[in-house]
Amino acid sequence: MNQQDIFVQMALKAWTTQINQANKFFDSVNDEVLLKEVAPGKNRIIYLLGHLIAVNDSMITLFGLGERSYVHLDDPFLRKPDKAVSDYPGAAQLRKDWNSANETLSSHFAKMSPEDWFRKHTAMTDDDFRREPTRNKLSVLINRTNHVAYHLGQLVLAKEK
Amino acid sequence: MNQQDIFVQMALKAWTTQINQANKFFDSVNDEVLLKEVAPGKNRIIYLLGHLIAVNDSMITLFGLGERSYVHLDDPFLRKPDKAVSDYPGAAQLRKDWNSANETLSSHFAKMSPEDWFRKHTAMTDDDFRREPTRNKLSVLINRTNHVAYHLGQLVLAKEK
Repeated sequence: MNQQDIFVQMALKAWTTQINQANKFFDSVNDEVLLKEVAPGKNRIIYLLGHLIAVNDSMITLFGLGERSYVHLDDPFLRKPDKAVSDYPGAAQLRKDWNSANETLSSHFAKMSPEDWFRKHTAMTDDDFRREPTRNKLSVLINRTNHVAYHLGQLVLAKEK
Repeated sequence: MNQQDIFVQMALKAWTTQINQANKFFDSVNDEVLLKEVAPGKNRIIYLLGHLIAVNDSMITLFGLGERSYVHLDDPFLRKPDKAVSDYPGAAQLRKDWNSANETLSSHFAKMSPEDWFRKHTAMTDDDFRREPTRNKLSVLINRTNHVAYHLGQLVLAKEK
């Protein structure tokens, strides 16, 4: 393995670790618990589930991998705060979407070359990228990994000891 | 910048982002708020402050950078759960330790070469490292960054809207 491969593997491993932890959490709670707030007056678990699907799904267009499948989740789970919208998909649908979104991302990531991870994402201009070569696709993945960890820290608070 | 420099800069940037966010949080709460739990029955903010200092400080020995300065925080903030120990350092001391620990880490990190980040940490054997070259110092930093993000997600819940 060369250095570039090693680094991509490290970042992907960190991503997979966080996604697996979140997976384990969502699998461990029933639909009733999904409606609980992580702390009094804060986001409900179901909101964070939809939020993570929407935010992670945005990597599809940011990496130029095609059309997003969950753009309809942006409004209820990203642009609007929790409880602002009542007609969002139900628990069963969101659980399915979460798994399917992760499978789609994994299969895309598996096909990306190390070189590709170091290229600019679609929201950067060539000039920006020349000035800041660290703002590549891999840096987006690293940020998204921290974003999953951040919300995972909140999710686990909703569980009974 | 060569590829290796770029990887290291990316990981360090993600680390600094999380530390700055945590910094901003701790600076924004007074000593009274520091004694609040992040959610009912969960860890207090002061426990997470001590916990982050202890966990991050362990990189000093793990990276072979010298002796740890905050090993005495491991017992009250890492090995034991919150509220199990009553004689831990006070808020003023922990705030000082947090800043000082971050400065020490930053100054060490600034002196480490990109090659060094890709070497094994002290808890790995040569054989292990040959089998798993992704388990280098930089992977520890990436994990620690996710660890800060995880607890930061909890800390922000304790703040009033």
